[in-house]
Amino acid sequence: MDENSEQLLAKIVRTTRVAALGTLRDGAPLVSMVAYVAAQDFSAFYIHVSRLAQHTVDMQKDNRIGLMMAEPDDGRPDPQTLARVFIRGVAEFMVPGEPGYTPVKSLYMGCFPASERLFELADFGLWKITPKGGRYIAGFAKAYNLTAESLKKASGS
Amino acid sequence: MDENSEQLLAKIVRTTRVAALGTLRDGAPLVSMVAYVAAQDFSAFYIHVSRLAQHTVDMQKDNRIGLMMAEPDDGRPDPQTLARVFIRGVAEFMVPGEPGYTPVKSLYMGCFPASERLFELADFGLWKITPKGGRYIAGFAKAYNLTAESLKKASGS
Repeated sequence: MDENSEQLLAKIVRTTRVAALGTLRDGAPLVSMVAYVAAQDFSAFYIHVSRLAQHTVDMQKDNRIGLMMAEPDDGRPDPQTLARVFIRGVAEFMVPGEPGYTPVKSLYMGCFPASERLFELADFGLWKITPKGGRYIAGFAKAYNLTAESLKKASGS
Repeated sequence: MDENSEQLLAKIVRTTRVAALGTLRDGAPLVSMVAYVAAQDFSAFYIHVSRLAQHTVDMQKDNRIGLMMAEPDDGRPDPQTLARVFIRGVAEFMVPGEPGYTPVKSLYMGCFPASERLFELADFGLWKITPKGGRYIAGFAKAYNLTAESLKKASGS
C-alpha cells in the first residue's frame, strides 16, 4: 500500500465516528450502525452496545463480525469513489472490572462524552473487535487486502 | 410508526446516496459500501456493482443481503442517536435487455450521471434488492420493525 493510501486509511479510521456493523442473524447478514473508537495501533476497535439490540444478540451467538467505515459523502459526482475500510473480525464482550476494561471505557468516553449516561444503564456493555483481515478501497479500482499487520502499519504505530 | 418517523425514514432513503451492504463470505458477514437508488414506493433498491468486487461474488453464491442507510454524522454529541434504516432483502442480477432493465438504468443514471462510464464496462451490472423486512432506529430507544408494507407506507406511495 502506498503512503498516501495508508494516511487516508488512518484518517478514515480516526475521524469517522460511526461504522456499519455486520452480524449474522439466522444465517443472513444484518447491518446496523454503531459508534466506535479504535485503539491507537488499530489492533482493536471498541463499541458500546445494548444487549437488547439485535446486533448484540447476534454477536452473543456468533462472534464473527464485519465493520465498515467510509468517508462521508461530500456530494461528489460519483460516490463510488469514496474511500472505505472493511474489517473482518471477532467480537468479544468486555467484563466490567476485568483488566483492560477501565482504559477502554476512558478511551470511549473521551471520544463520546455523551455516552456517560449509557454506561449507567445495565443493558449497555463494551465489546472489543479484533481485526482478522479486511479490504480497503482507497478509490475507484484501488483496492487492498488488509491484515492485522497492514492495519498496524497504517496506524503509524 | 408515527408520521414524523415515517417522514424521516423516507428522507433518509431518498437523500442518502450510499448504503452499507452486508453479504455472506465463507459464512461470515462482509460489509461494503454501495451507491443505491430506491424505487419510488420503496419496493426495490438498485445497485450497480462490478462482478470483480467481493460483494458481487458473495451475492452470486447467496442472495441474502442487508442494506443499511444512516443519517450523515452531523457532529452531534451522541452519534448513536442518528437515525438509520436496515433492510433485509434478496438480491437479483438484472439481465440487460430484459423487461424492466432500461427504466432502472435510467433511474440509476438520473441519480448518478457519473456512472455512465461504468455502464460501458463489461464487469458492471445492475442488481435489484427486494426488501423482506428490516429494522428502523428513528433515534435513541425508538425502534421499529419494518416490512415491505411499512416501507411502502413510509414512501407515501
